[in-house]
Amino acid sequence: MLVEFGDTKVICTASVEETVPSFLKGKGQGWVTAEYGMLPRSTGTRMRREAAAGKQSGRTQEIQRLIGRSLRAVVDLVKLGERQITIDCDVIQADGGTRTASITGAWVALADAVDSLIAQGKLAENPIREAVAAVSVGIVGEEPVLDLDYIEDSGCETDMNVVMTASGRFIEVQGTAEGVPFTREEMDMLLDLAGKGIAQLVELQSAARR
Amino acid sequence: MLVEFGDTKVICTASVEETVPSFLKGKGQGWVTAEYGMLPRSTGTRMRREAAAGKQSGRTQEIQRLIGRSLRAVVDLVKLGERQITIDCDVIQADGGTRTASITGAWVALADAVDSLIAQGKLAENPIREAVAAVSVGIVGEEPVLDLDYIEDSGCETDMNVVMTASGRFIEVQGTAEGVPFTREEMDMLLDLAGKGIAQLVELQSAARR
Amino acid sequence: MLVEFGDTKVICTASVEETVPSFLKGKGQGWVTAEYGMLPRSTGTRMRREAAAGKQSGRTQEIQRLIGRSLRAVVDLVKLGERQITIDCDVIQADGGTRTASITGAWVALADAVDSLIAQGKLAENPIREAVAAVSVGIVGEEPVLDLDYIEDSGCETDMNVVMTASGRFIEVQGTAEGVPFTREEMDMLLDLAGKGIAQLVELQSAARR
Amino acid sequence: MLVEFGDTKVICTASVEETVPSFLKGKGQGWVTAEYGMLPRSTGTRMRREAAAGKQSGRTQEIQRLIGRSLRAVVDLVKLGERQITIDCDVIQADGGTRTASITGAWVALADAVDSLIAQGKLAENPIREAVAAVSVGIVGEEPVLDLDYIEDSGCETDMNVVMTASGRFIEVQGTAEGVPFTREEMDMLLDLAGKGIAQLVELQSAARR
Amino acid sequence: MLVEFGDTKVICTASVEETVPSFLKGKGQGWVTAEYGMLPRSTGTRMRREAAAGKQSGRTQEIQRLIGRSLRAVVDLVKLGERQITIDCDVIQADGGTRTASITGAWVALADAVDSLIAQGKLAENPIREAVAAVSVGIVGEEPVLDLDYIEDSGCETDMNVVMTASGRFIEVQGTAEGVPFTREEMDMLLDLAGKGIAQLVELQSAARR
Amino acid sequence: MLVEFGDTKVICTASVEETVPSFLKGKGQGWVTAEYGMLPRSTGTRMRREAAAGKQSGRTQEIQRLIGRSLRAVVDLVKLGERQITIDCDVIQADGGTRTASITGAWVALADAVDSLIAQGKLAENPIREAVAAVSVGIVGEEPVLDLDYIEDSGCETDMNVVMTASGRFIEVQGTAEGVPFTREEMDMLLDLAGKGIAQLVELQSAARR
Repeated sequence: MLVEFGDTKVICTASVEETVPSFLKGKGQGWVTAEYGMLPRSTGTRMRREAAAGKQSGRTQEIQRLIGRSLRAVVDLVKLGERQITIDCDVIQADGGTRTASITGAWVALADAVDSLIAQGKLAENPIREAVAAVSVGIVGEEPVLDLDYIEDSGCETDMNVVMTASGRFIEVQGTAEGVPFTREEMDMLLDLAGKGIAQLVELQSAARR
Repeated sequence: MLVEFGDTKVICTASVEETVPSFLKGKGQGWVTAEYGMLPRSTGTRMRREAAAGKQSGRTQEIQRLIGRSLRAVVDLVKLGERQITIDCDVIQADGGTRTASITGAWVALADAVDSLIAQGKLAENPIREAVAAVSVGIVGEEPVLDLDYIEDSGCETDMNVVMTASGRFIEVQGTAEGVPFTREEMDMLLDLAGKGIAQLVELQSAARR
Repeated sequence: MLVEFGDTKVICTASVEETVPSFLKGKGQGWVTAEYGMLPRSTGTRMRREAAAGKQSGRTQEIQRLIGRSLRAVVDLVKLGERQITIDCDVIQADGGTRTASITGAWVALADAVDSLIAQGKLAENPIREAVAAVSVGIVGEEPVLDLDYIEDSGCETDMNVVMTASGRFIEVQGTAEGVPFTREEMDMLLDLAGKGIAQLVELQSAARR
Repeated sequence: MLVEFGDTKVICTASVEETVPSFLKGKGQGWVTAEYGMLPRSTGTRMRREAAAGKQSGRTQEIQRLIGRSLRAVVDLVKLGERQITIDCDVIQADGGTRTASITGAWVALADAVDSLIAQGKLAENPIREAVAAVSVGIVGEEPVLDLDYIEDSGCETDMNVVMTASGRFIEVQGTAEGVPFTREEMDMLLDLAGKGIAQLVELQSAARR
Repeated sequence: MLVEFGDTKVICTASVEETVPSFLKGKGQGWVTAEYGMLPRSTGTRMRREAAAGKQSGRTQEIQRLIGRSLRAVVDLVKLGERQITIDCDVIQADGGTRTASITGAWVALADAVDSLIAQGKLAENPIREAVAAVSVGIVGEEPVLDLDYIEDSGCETDMNVVMTASGRFIEVQGTAEGVPFTREEMDMLLDLAGKGIAQLVELQSAARR
Repeated sequence: MLVEFGDTKVICTASVEETVPSFLKGKGQGWVTAEYGMLPRSTGTRMRREAAAGKQSGRTQEIQRLIGRSLRAVVDLVKLGERQITIDCDVIQADGGTRTASITGAWVALADAVDSLIAQGKLAENPIREAVAAVSVGIVGEEPVLDLDYIEDSGCETDMNVVMTASGRFIEVQGTAEGVPFTREEMDMLLDLAGKGIAQLVELQSAARR
């Protein structure tokens, strides 16, 4: 599926394998993992192709681990059975918010893949407990802002990524101040704003289901 | 730009840098090069992400060298001036013919980039001599076939990639028989058929120009 | 210097180079960065030596970026001048809390190095604005806990790393729920507890200055 | 065995293993593959040792795949049985034509290895259908030329590698024009000339059999 | 255990695994191996972290092979049984003599580990035949010198590493003259001196046993 | 040049560059270095190609450093001027003694290269002080043996490599006992025997000069 937030476009696809990584062999549970990539020209200036560089950047690894962790937090891995679902998130065009768009879209791809497994009779019960989505919030000037286009990836802003479930629980909170450190009051405002953003995304996810 | 041949979809983009690789510094000429990649799920079965594997496969390197060579054959590198144009060809969906689709689309991206340089007053004269396109032809049963969907990448067929200019000259002919070696008569039929296919593609390229 | 928190022991050293990374050349400012490592037998079970494996794990890269970012947030890089300070944090013995111990100790090593530069007349003014320290907090059962020994690195607990300045501002908040997602109330309790822990560490840092 | 064409010298050796690569396990067939290398001082100017560089160049990989493919095209892999023959082609001195000399010599090494297997009673029937050899042809000025010494590896000439069987069938045709693209008439002349060259090489191969 | 020779400090630890490397599987014997590393700031000037460089230097590999070989020379690997003991030698502070300090300390770590195995009833008989230690000797001016602090690692001196057993037999002699080659008389003096140094170290090892 | 000792065959070539490695820039002296490689089928059983493995083994690195060090010990690097001579030693066929054959042959290649520089008027004075050669000696049963064919590379023998100058001085002594450690008396016998072997090789080197 193609996820679009403003000018950011991410292709999210799910691949199901009827096997699990070796560390889970024979444990009676499944696994959900993710890989992330950006096309070299997805950004305004061409960035180096990671396959040509011979390795994934630390940022890429961090993002793909975050996506995988976020999805696993809402999946009952025992109910999934001994299979692995890999979600690939590939950024075709980047205009901020690629990691939050990836998580939000990855959940839809995962939910569709699980529906197929149920339709094929491979799964008796849905292992997904609830939806998960992600937003970036930040402080511009003195105002808290929910805005995927400008906050992430600008490198020098205060920036907080929040991964939340449909029921309003936190899976991941990553707030970073490369510039001026932020206060507890600012933090509270950011968390409130994130909660509102997540609620909107969960509605969009519902609408996007196949 | 997005190139589609049947179910094969390739994103071709051009990036211009006002510098040349070190081996060309001070030689008064430019360079045209290409990079190629496939999304892991572009094929029916998920393939391993090259960035995760830590290197580009030999096949990837071979294809990107072929694309670059094909484009340079129709460009006057001195007229291009001391700048480099990099064409990225990223396969979003693969159903055969990815290398020929990439070359055909890469030329359009290159031509558009050159038009922009002219419009910006950076180039006085168009360095592109003529169009270049590529087709795959092969032998199925005893019949020569021009068919992007089934021939390439099936691994066990006789298969010939032909890169030709709009004026009907050859830039590259790569014919391989993994199965039964082919005769001179078969070769002549394949070359005739390739010429017809190229003529059609050159018209499609014209239509696709921005 | 050797930092000890419970049974966790980390050697933190600062190295000053009178040059900056190339991306900062001629910009009139300095840089602070960090590298992190663990001896193979620092943990109960011997882990693989990263130099032998041929690369740093994603976890190692993530931690060293976090240490660097935390230190830069309290340093005026322009006042530091065109020089780079590299802090090496090497874990000799690990019993949880290695990343927070590293940040807390790294600040002391940095502050001592800056004192030397001032003593040598190389710096007129102290570029460090205030102290920075880090704690891990988590939820065990239903209780918020401030406990370096048990929380971090156990892999299956809710766990929040908080990097704060002496004046109580946040530089980094990383909260992750691999298990059950946590509520807003739990988050607030964790942040309160983290603030108390940081205040104690800042006193210990003062005492440890050379 | 040592193959010499003009001043080009290549050592071709065959190694037989009584096992097959994992992708062929239990399929009741064998495999033939090749590896290629050049001594650093085989060329006039010392080139970098690939083992020191830490990887094989794209050119090396392309050549070794071509050699393997050419040999497999004349071998009945089922008759070969579940074993692998690896042909190493190492260039001791290079004066053009290293890839065609390698293919031509590799076939002799392969044929000798198969003879040994038959002599040892490990093979009942010869799995090699016919000989295979390779030539480079090109256009110098306006003349087609069959000349191993000057054509290949000069980098800026029109150049065609042709791999053919003793019975005159094509296994591989790779024609490249980095300079002026070539016409169909030129192509026909080149293919005629290649056929004559191959016939001579097949006689030399016979004479060189152990 | 922490080994100190002058200002050189090395942490030596033993890890026991109840398995052997694959080349020894089912041969009824064990294995002893070693890994070596230096903290980046163990030397006066910070050296590059090998894990960050992505590989171990040749020097590191040479030293760890030497340590392993020295230990195996005094161990009855059959009596050790099918288990592997890995000794990690990590240099915390380097002031010359790191390789000889490592060997000398590694033996103590090994002997302690074997004692534990005996205490746990896993070994009936001690597989260590005798102690092993190592010294560096060299020629400064015209005088033979036994001095760990100045000789090794200075790069331009005549330098000889001698690994000997408690009973005065040689396991390894590595003498190198980067400067003026040395005579047979000088060699004899160096070997005499080494023997005296080893005798002292064997006493210190006894004292250091746990 | 091709060096043969028994069935061991090594190609030794010298390449002269009119530049020095960066660590010697502007120091008014030259450099001599060596690289070493083995063809995959130089041994009885095919070994893995290092370029395909993606790195040189520790053994390869150790040998090439030893060759370079041995040659530099007899060269006045200041007289050589600001140029580098690289000696490539490539083993075509290995039957023991490859490292000693390489050193012995490398010196001849170096001496020939220096002669050419003198003949071309690039060097006024010969920077080579004297010849250098290498032998392996060992103990078989209780007898000291000078025998290139059986000693080296067998892996389980006492084995000593000795690099000596024509005037009988030592550059390198590497004696290793993987089996039973050896006594001082045995060592003295081995050194005597090595001296005799070196004297013979120096005569052969003279005879082999171009």
